[in-house]
Amino acid sequence: MQKSSSASSLGPGGLDLSQSFFKPIQNTAPPSPTKRHTKVSVIGVGNVGMAIAQTILTQDLVDELALVDAKADKLHGEMLDLQHAAAFLPRTKINASVDYSVTAGSDLCIVTAGARQNPGESRLNLLQRNVAMFSNIIPPLAKYSPDSILLIVSNPVDVLTYVSWKLSGFPSNRVIGSGTNLDSSRFRFLIADHLDVIAQDVQAYIVGEHGDSSVALWSSISVGGVPVLSFLQNQHIAYEKETLENIHKAVIGSAYDVINLKGYTSWAIGYSVANLARSLLRDQRKIHPVSVLAKGFYGIDGGDVFLSLPAQLGRGGVLGVTNIHLTDEEEQRLRESAKTILEVQSQLGL
Amino acid sequence: MQKSSSASSLGPGGLDLSQSFFKPIQNTAPPSPTKRHTKVSVIGVGNVGMAIAQTILTQDLVDELALVDAKADKLHGEMLDLQHAAAFLPRTKINASVDYSVTAGSDLCIVTAGARQNPGESRLNLLQRNVAMFSNIIPPLAKYSPDSILLIVSNPVDVLTYVSWKLSGFPSNRVIGSGTNLDSSRFRFLIADHLDVIAQDVQAYIVGEHGDSSVALWSSISVGGVPVLSFLQNQHIAYEKETLENIHKAVIGSAYDVINLKGYTSWAIGYSVANLARSLLRDQRKIHPVSVLAKGFYGIDGGDVFLSLPAQLGRGGVLGVTNIHLTDEEEQRLRESAKTILEVQSQLGL
Amino acid sequence: MQKSSSASSLGPGGLDLSQSFFKPIQNTAPPSPTKRHTKVSVIGVGNVGMAIAQTILTQDLVDELALVDAKADKLHGEMLDLQHAAAFLPRTKINASVDYSVTAGSDLCIVTAGARQNPGESRLNLLQRNVAMFSNIIPPLAKYSPDSILLIVSNPVDVLTYVSWKLSGFPSNRVIGSGTNLDSSRFRFLIADHLDVIAQDVQAYIVGEHGDSSVALWSSISVGGVPVLSFLQNQHIAYEKETLENIHKAVIGSAYDVINLKGYTSWAIGYSVANLARSLLRDQRKIHPVSVLAKGFYGIDGGDVFLSLPAQLGRGGVLGVTNIHLTDEEEQRLRESAKTILEVQSQLGL
Amino acid sequence: MQKSSSASSLGPGGLDLSQSFFKPIQNTAPPSPTKRHTKVSVIGVGNVGMAIAQTILTQDLVDELALVDAKADKLHGEMLDLQHAAAFLPRTKINASVDYSVTAGSDLCIVTAGARQNPGESRLNLLQRNVAMFSNIIPPLAKYSPDSILLIVSNPVDVLTYVSWKLSGFPSNRVIGSGTNLDSSRFRFLIADHLDVIAQDVQAYIVGEHGDSSVALWSSISVGGVPVLSFLQNQHIAYEKETLENIHKAVIGSAYDVINLKGYTSWAIGYSVANLARSLLRDQRKIHPVSVLAKGFYGIDGGDVFLSLPAQLGRGGVLGVTNIHLTDEEEQRLRESAKTILEVQSQLGL
Repeated sequence: MQKSSSASSLGPGGLDLSQSFFKPIQNTAPPSPTKRHTKVSVIGVGNVGMAIAQTILTQDLVDELALVDAKADKLHGEMLDLQHAAAFLPRTKINASVDYSVTAGSDLCIVTAGARQNPGESRLNLLQRNVAMFSNIIPPLAKYSPDSILLIVSNPVDVLTYVSWKLSGFPSNRVIGSGTNLDSSRFRFLIADHLDVIAQDVQAYIVGEHGDSSVALWSSISVGGVPVLSFLQNQHIAYEKETLENIHKAVIGSAYDVINLKGYTSWAIGYSVANLARSLLRDQRKIHPVSVLAKGFYGIDGGDVFLSLPAQLGRGGVLGVTNIHLTDEEEQRLRESAKTILEVQSQLGL
Repeated sequence: MQKSSSASSLGPGGLDLSQSFFKPIQNTAPPSPTKRHTKVSVIGVGNVGMAIAQTILTQDLVDELALVDAKADKLHGEMLDLQHAAAFLPRTKINASVDYSVTAGSDLCIVTAGARQNPGESRLNLLQRNVAMFSNIIPPLAKYSPDSILLIVSNPVDVLTYVSWKLSGFPSNRVIGSGTNLDSSRFRFLIADHLDVIAQDVQAYIVGEHGDSSVALWSSISVGGVPVLSFLQNQHIAYEKETLENIHKAVIGSAYDVINLKGYTSWAIGYSVANLARSLLRDQRKIHPVSVLAKGFYGIDGGDVFLSLPAQLGRGGVLGVTNIHLTDEEEQRLRESAKTILEVQSQLGL
Repeated sequence: MQKSSSASSLGPGGLDLSQSFFKPIQNTAPPSPTKRHTKVSVIGVGNVGMAIAQTILTQDLVDELALVDAKADKLHGEMLDLQHAAAFLPRTKINASVDYSVTAGSDLCIVTAGARQNPGESRLNLLQRNVAMFSNIIPPLAKYSPDSILLIVSNPVDVLTYVSWKLSGFPSNRVIGSGTNLDSSRFRFLIADHLDVIAQDVQAYIVGEHGDSSVALWSSISVGGVPVLSFLQNQHIAYEKETLENIHKAVIGSAYDVINLKGYTSWAIGYSVANLARSLLRDQRKIHPVSVLAKGFYGIDGGDVFLSLPAQLGRGGVLGVTNIHLTDEEEQRLRESAKTILEVQSQLGL
Repeated sequence: MQKSSSASSLGPGGLDLSQSFFKPIQNTAPPSPTKRHTKVSVIGVGNVGMAIAQTILTQDLVDELALVDAKADKLHGEMLDLQHAAAFLPRTKINASVDYSVTAGSDLCIVTAGARQNPGESRLNLLQRNVAMFSNIIPPLAKYSPDSILLIVSNPVDVLTYVSWKLSGFPSNRVIGSGTNLDSSRFRFLIADHLDVIAQDVQAYIVGEHGDSSVALWSSISVGGVPVLSFLQNQHIAYEKETLENIHKAVIGSAYDVINLKGYTSWAIGYSVANLARSLLRDQRKIHPVSVLAKGFYGIDGGDVFLSLPAQLGRGGVLGVTNIHLTDEEEQRLRESAKTILEVQSQLGL
């Protein structure tokens, strides 16, 4: 962390140690211009943006972190607060500005900015304000980091990921929404908690629209490699479909629970997005349920629509979508989700 | 993370997988009662408490984390938000309660709770309210975890660490204030930033009272093992004492800067306290400037007073204080700090 | 890392800084005798033992590491070589001795010692020599660490785990063989490599005897939560059973490959055992295919026999065995493995 | 870890899952050719080379690791042994070949290859054989990775670093010898062990030639920021210069101890070089005592000579040398070291 404005203010009339403290060796040459380092920009320094930024920093994923927000004071305060932790962290360059030029050369741009719903405001009106906001965010990001991956976290995430794709002109593999990655994590937590196993041993996906119409893929649940539904059948254990749906409802409800109880969600989405950032930046080729251009999958053909499917993520962004088998009912639900999102999009006039 | 109330609610009338999914092997015996695992409790789930809890969790320092706060809703929301991150973290038990029994058997209790200053309220009045609050916090902590270490973060940290020592009846090596550990980190950041080196290569202490009267130990500053003051002398580089003091003032000011800009500090204190937790829990025997019982050091003899000195921390708490040489002026300042704190303490009537 | 004999030799007639460098604070008390720290002992400092010890150290899993071997020089050299890395690692106490008292109070004892096959020696004769060796290893380990978990790595691992169980008198949940944990990892690597996904997204078990008669559980293979066999069926992709068996054969062959090429295996077994150590010491409740007392599972009832099954591991050792469904053929193979091992055991006269 | 030859051998006549398991999304574009990932090559897969490679892998420093050695079997075995650990590690591409083309595009090339001394062979003769070996190693490395940093570990490290500089034609900031980085670590361990502090709190350098003529910088030793020599003076503690020299002798002796006891050194040099790799690849701007072009420092002016000085390392290689004050005696010793090395170099006829 370096060259913050606060520190350079020590300079004038002060002590210039840096000139005398180090001496160059002979016969050197400057590093080549293709110097490789990893840079992430986070747009929006509210609770979600900062939880993401701090988790990425703690997990030592980047060499440079840039923060952008319209509120200059809050932004500067958050930057200083992170910089003051320098002694406890590997060296990372942390910058912040209201000007998007600070994001230049990013490998990954994470967008968490979004308008809040006004009292009595319709959801469509809110969305239109968010689209207006994104038209000021996405084009400068795309201009300053033309090779970057865009990761959209703001809600409604599926529509805003579509909007970002349109506004950026990027190929679809480089525009991703955080989608149901966190919903799936909550799903895995509830199952693991119930069985008293580690959540990392539970495989389970929630796909589709991030929100109330999300689809739980029961057939894909396995624990320690054991498919749970066929396990139940083999053990002749009866179960009610309603019971399974209650777990799904608990997942959807748990997001509302956190918001009702503490006013917002932050930590879990922070870890979730940092986890996506690792898969993307370190080319992990790992499978995550995230919002991708879903046209052509499972009979979704009404138009360009983004919703969450289990996608393999790596340095190139979305590398592919897992060719997972869905039941007819699951497919039907996915198509309905797609239809709903498309209707909303058609009202935006993009 | 397990056995949260939300998950167990799936139980009644539902699917009991846990009974059938695992089968015990034969000839087993329950684990011995001395089963060792590491538990930390954080009291107060405001911005500071949660930044500490989350950083400790990300850095995988504990097997169990307990949160306590008087606000049940906020507390439950923060617990759920951390639990939902289970899929991204090593397995850690996370509990929360307004009842201190949840802290039973802690290795380390971190206290961040504190009253806020009311408009027009005197500092003494605020302090008295905080002391009253601590008289409800410290005794139950000491009762439920009689062998734990108390780490006080609430301000004014030096007086409240003394208060906690008195209220707990603990030996002094197990009562520590976060003190100037973060001030010293900011100091190292500013010097490292100026020299464009990594802050971990800078050794520099701020000691004494955590606050405006803290003492910067210029003679102890070294960069990569090079003592800076003697370096300047050897290089015949002139410097004004005023310049050095400006750096110290920048450190003191930077805390106010963050508060003015974002309303509170959180991330840096979170990393700072997580760093202390690591040294304590993992017996690192590392030297940190923290608030300890300072009586008998540097001519401080007017009474029992806590202020920050470079102390070696390990599993037993404070293992000793570095016998560092101070200039006469530095010693004088320390004694004045001690005197001021003692005067405040005398008004508390403990 | 501390108090090695080499360092204390600086003492006599030398500089005793430690007395003067730190001064105690007042009103202290010694830490309670129930001080919790994590200790692992590794028996045998050959290539396997040292790869395990070094990986555990790098991954910062323990506070104390003890090494035991019959060869005093080699042992002392390995200890010094690890200690010299102190500046690059968190502080860990590293001790070594030919005397088992150095292992006292271990949480986990990992046994890698074993005799090598002499030219012309029968497998039974080799095994008898190993049993004789274990009768000098296990009783002192059990005596000095009566609450510890025994993790056996030496081969033939299943029989020697049984032998260790008998010699220790420990309950069966605290005696575990590394078994097919590494075979399963190689299996997952080959599948992941083929699909160009991350191996951590592949779930796949090899169970049974560690060796040529191990059983690959095809029905349990899933990639990113997608069960592979039913995927193939759903996609109407034909496959030959022979093809699947070739992958299993490649797994078995790959261990021989490494031994033929470099003379021994070390790195992969080091990571594999360090991974088991993490699940055990940090109570991860994670599922691993390891050698456990298998009597009563899948119709195995001829006697006390250890072989690998997917077991949940935590601080208490083996917490249970996954109640996974096997095909009739897989069950049959498991029972044959058990029978072979029992015949060998009957010749040992324990 | 992927696309090893063993895995692709599953292909012919086998099961091609990879085609069907993932499906591409629409409107994608291939990643830009400037895709950034971090690659390290290790030349020589003996005990030292493999300890370095494995430690770099465990610490998750790279996206791709290439191994080169003249012995094809040993090389292939080591590659497979690392690849089999895939399930326990973040995804890293591991390749190996006797052909240097496998190193193409490396950010850092670490050379550990070297000839062993034959019985009765003179040191000069051994050096000449090593120079001959390097003339087959360095030019292809420079050709395939023209922008890389060369880090030389083979001994005699100072002369071979000079040789590598000449053979590569690289600017001097991109040719570094591991030099006294490990000696300094051992020095810090012995002091920390004596004081019972963590070695990371001890600052202490050994500089000059890596070997018996290395120079311990007593004036730079500090513990927790306290300069030890001035501490002793302030405390009126008498000490014999001889005592200090004994600690230095113990450092030099400890390398020989390890070699005598276990036959070679591996773990400590592995951690030491991995630590240098981190500073270089992650642009840590940290200060390490390593072998650099020393001409012009401390009156060294007889010719181009490499020896260890405290250098700041970052993505550009050597960023500068700390302008540390040496006593006249220390400077004199350094110049003598330089003279000795230059005489050896003059016999090489480069």
